[in-house]
Amino acid sequence: MAVITIVGSGMMGSALAFPARENGNEVRLVGTHLDREIIDACIATNQHPKFERPFPAGVKYYQIESLDEALEGADFVIGGVSSFGVEWFGDKVLPAMKEGTPLLTVTKGLIDTPEGRLITYPDYWRGRLHEMGKQIPLNAIGGPCTSYELVAHDQSHVSFCGEDMEVLKFLKSAMETDYYHVSITGDITGIESAVALKNGYALGVALTIGLNQKTFGDDTLHYNSQAAVFGQATKEMSRLLKFQNADTLNNLCVGVGDLYVTVYGGRTRLIGILLGKGLSLEAAKKELRGVTLESLVVAERVARAVRKAIDRGELRAADFPVLLHIDEILTKGAEVRIPWEAFTYLES
Amino acid sequence: MAVITIVGSGMMGSALAFPARENGNEVRLVGTHLDREIIDACIATNQHPKFERPFPAGVKYYQIESLDEALEGADFVIGGVSSFGVEWFGDKVLPAMKEGTPLLTVTKGLIDTPEGRLITYPDYWRGRLHEMGKQIPLNAIGGPCTSYELVAHDQSHVSFCGEDMEVLKFLKSAMETDYYHVSITGDITGIESAVALKNGYALGVALTIGLNQKTFGDDTLHYNSQAAVFGQATKEMSRLLKFQNADTLNNLCVGVGDLYVTVYGGRTRLIGILLGKGLSLEAAKKELRGVTLESLVVAERVARAVRKAIDRGELRAADFPVLLHIDEILTKGAEVRIPWEAFTYLES
Repeated sequence: MAVITIVGSGMMGSALAFPARENGNEVRLVGTHLDREIIDACIATNQHPKFERPFPAGVKYYQIESLDEALEGADFVIGGVSSFGVEWFGDKVLPAMKEGTPLLTVTKGLIDTPEGRLITYPDYWRGRLHEMGKQIPLNAIGGPCTSYELVAHDQSHVSFCGEDMEVLKFLKSAMETDYYHVSITGDITGIESAVALKNGYALGVALTIGLNQKTFGDDTLHYNSQAAVFGQATKEMSRLLKFQNADTLNNLCVGVGDLYVTVYGGRTRLIGILLGKGLSLEAAKKELRGVTLESLVVAERVARAVRKAIDRGELRAADFPVLLHIDEILTKGAEVRIPWEAFTYLES
Repeated sequence: MAVITIVGSGMMGSALAFPARENGNEVRLVGTHLDREIIDACIATNQHPKFERPFPAGVKYYQIESLDEALEGADFVIGGVSSFGVEWFGDKVLPAMKEGTPLLTVTKGLIDTPEGRLITYPDYWRGRLHEMGKQIPLNAIGGPCTSYELVAHDQSHVSFCGEDMEVLKFLKSAMETDYYHVSITGDITGIESAVALKNGYALGVALTIGLNQKTFGDDTLHYNSQAAVFGQATKEMSRLLKFQNADTLNNLCVGVGDLYVTVYGGRTRLIGILLGKGLSLEAAKKELRGVTLESLVVAERVARAVRKAIDRGELRAADFPVLLHIDEILTKGAEVRIPWEAFTYLES
């Protein structure tokens, strides 16, 4: 039995309380300053307002003011903030964590540097820890796993990545259940890249759904065009993993699985369909008010880095037709016009 | 403008009449001996009984007795039989074709040899042509493209493969439209393997849908478990492409796209859901009476070859948990019990 403190009571952080607690661990769920009402609700009802079932009995809830208390004696910390909370996490949570206590973060994303490199959130936090002169083993969760379905106990396969295999084995043993299956790998860059790179492509697949609805009517659901983008996306993701020096088969398959679930389970799908139907980005965002557009921010970052790599001659624009078109839609308000012919190849 | 003779008026062969004819080619659709009623209906109504819209004006229809007439002056022949018609095609159609007239086959599948090798249908026909002392340029179509959606003009990206790039360029120019996008490649084994290997995996993804319905109710549709199988399937398909000496990124992406469309568009999905819900193979087949189980036959062939390769020490059973489980279900009536833990890896 371990003591597990989850910081961030959004959906994904909170969902991890299920396998964590069902395994008999002590689980402490801490809301950020943005989660105050969620924690109030959890205390009152033992249920997250967005979930359809209560937490397993015994989960403890904390407002952010009680962070130190919640971290006391923790065997590891799960980081469950969104991409927008990564800096905050470095400012507030890392300093409060005890030296040597492992972090397992579930935040998916990448940061592009001014030089056009894509670094992981663990990379970013490693820099912050270095400034503090502090040592925290950094680990992360990647792979296709939506919060609702984890709560529902759908079978899920994820990858924990980190620097120290012994730490990873401990995290796996604490978290794995008969429905939450955990691979472990030392390749942080690979896993974190795989699951961040998919964002633009999930939007791309969803665009075809909207395009079909616009052309053939709202009841239309075709798969040839989705599959064409999905296949091209797999190709571009493999090239991006290579750009990240991380093009292993494991990593690609984590990215492909994550793309699959995001096309169906995610909010990216909704905005993609609206854009495909012809709404402007502004109008689509308005229609989905309240939805976090984290995935689109990450897609823009990836495209920005790729454009710089193209300028440096490290990558070729012709190899990324979907990514660059998505970027034009997101950053320049371009009309949706999927470059189908750019998918074709001639290979003797 | 070319003269194109399509032999086999099942759904896929017939669907190809749309881009072929819309491009202004002369198109002749020939039914096999099993297609007699389809051709009667086409002659009477200019519409395939299974399609929701008529053929483009000007398509000509032939019963099998008029094969010679239909082949007269053809610039190329499209082979549209099912896997069960491959031998028949070699017996009846290849001998009737004029020396040098290219074949473009859309039949997807592989044949396992007694030695446990997987050969393509063009490989098989090449042998037959050799016996006849005849030269026919062999080409094939792979990639994610269901007939219904091609008829509906959904955007589709396919790959034509063949031995001669000049022939492939001609076939592409005759067939490509603003919704039918064509890559060309010399890698017949790669494309034909990619689109045949997916069959067992499409069934595997569908099993999870049925399992969820059995466990959580008929309205349940979860994606974590589908994505876990999809990611593992991508990994196993890459390994199988390597076994075929064809593990290029292009081929893998064709296979992934084809898997995606088969999970959604195909009949394999229906039987997978029934099996996942707990029906026996016998009962599931009975419920889908009239459905061609071509995909399952091909999946069995692939598994049979893989088992022989495992026996020879060329492949490892641990690398193919999904394929081997599917095979146990199909050939031994095994209960559905997806080996989730076998998907996990430890990679330092």
